[in-house]
Amino acid sequence: MKFNALVFDAYGTLLDVQTVIALCEKLFPGKGAALSQSWRAKQLEYTWLRSLMGRYEDFAQITADALRHACSALDLKLESSHVLQLMDAYDRLAPFPDVLEALPRLAQYKRVILSNGSPAMLNTAVKNAGLASYLDAVLSVDQIKIYKPDPRVYQLAIDRLGVDKASIGFVSSNYWDIAGAKSFGFNALWINRSGARPDALGIKPDAVLTGLTELSDL
Amino acid sequence: MKFNALVFDAYGTLLDVQTVIALCEKLFPGKGAALSQSWRAKQLEYTWLRSLMGRYEDFAQITADALRHACSALDLKLESSHVLQLMDAYDRLAPFPDVLEALPRLAQYKRVILSNGSPAMLNTAVKNAGLASYLDAVLSVDQIKIYKPDPRVYQLAIDRLGVDKASIGFVSSNYWDIAGAKSFGFNALWINRSGARPDALGIKPDAVLTGLTELSDL
Repeated sequence: MKFNALVFDAYGTLLDVQTVIALCEKLFPGKGAALSQSWRAKQLEYTWLRSLMGRYEDFAQITADALRHACSALDLKLESSHVLQLMDAYDRLAPFPDVLEALPRLAQYKRVILSNGSPAMLNTAVKNAGLASYLDAVLSVDQIKIYKPDPRVYQLAIDRLGVDKASIGFVSSNYWDIAGAKSFGFNALWINRSGARPDALGIKPDAVLTGLTELSDL
Repeated sequence: MKFNALVFDAYGTLLDVQTVIALCEKLFPGKGAALSQSWRAKQLEYTWLRSLMGRYEDFAQITADALRHACSALDLKLESSHVLQLMDAYDRLAPFPDVLEALPRLAQYKRVILSNGSPAMLNTAVKNAGLASYLDAVLSVDQIKIYKPDPRVYQLAIDRLGVDKASIGFVSSNYWDIAGAKSFGFNALWINRSGARPDALGIKPDAVLTGLTELSDL
């Protein structure tokens, strides 16, 4: 595979949401795993539902909405101070170790983030994670008000980079995002750090990697 | 509220999926609840993802795909005979008791199903459940190759019934479907038999009922 540019998903791909999970457990002892799993599921679900309904709200709003619903469904009393703490944790996610190691060494490529995150969330998270200097652009779905895997989202990277689809390597840990990118026409590089099973969406990635360090071997 | 027509969701609203859950437990003892929960979540997720990607497959295909993924993710060995048994159970779902009681008494309304199900699945299930004679039409998303909650799905009922949105009462147990129907312009009547918590999608139903028998009180 030959690429001119690498386009990265952010949350779960470059940025490790583990600290949010840990904070869920600290705030709701014994319920952290259930809460963070339900929160994440609802967060994604709401992006898809709002996209199909044509009722966009930005990712910060959706993330807070999903948190409120997840707590309600689990009978957890969510204080407004909890919301602030958990959303603040989203601003301070650590990058995965393989990201910090690999990203500076991939300077021969244009390196771009393409994320569901709102511009404010993304810019803060990227800066706090120390990744800003290794990225040529941070692109948010917010400019078109629809979420992944709508093909118009992946087109944003084409419009910004001015290269053709086949010269882009799209990197994500989320299999459904990989499916959307591959369906659009990108080379799809699935980062599977956790041994997850591929979704049955009839689409296969071009490569499966255990971390960003393997990108330089392609 | 005054309606000329009632439009019903099928799976989980008129038809009880409990027998499928019981069969999951019979085939995979101790794992039935986890499997059926994950299967249902993936079934819905795949309808939304395929709609956004523009890669429609019918609901029978998606249901089988979701089953395969759910078993894989739970490390359960799925035999082809299991797939046949579980898909067959979908054809033989029992109607909820309140449905059998209420549906014949609502003859002053046009009564229509509007479902994600494929035409073959729906027609078999409706016939086996003994509901066919109480319904004026069974409408499937299959004719437009996109799933709920895309507004074009709800438009199917308008096109068939030839009445305006405000004269339709839309009945579903799925809150996200209620949100889609309300967003489209229907009167949205949420059947909440299980005490579920509403989703945080910024949309509220026009009424919350514990069963179809309460429809005649509106």
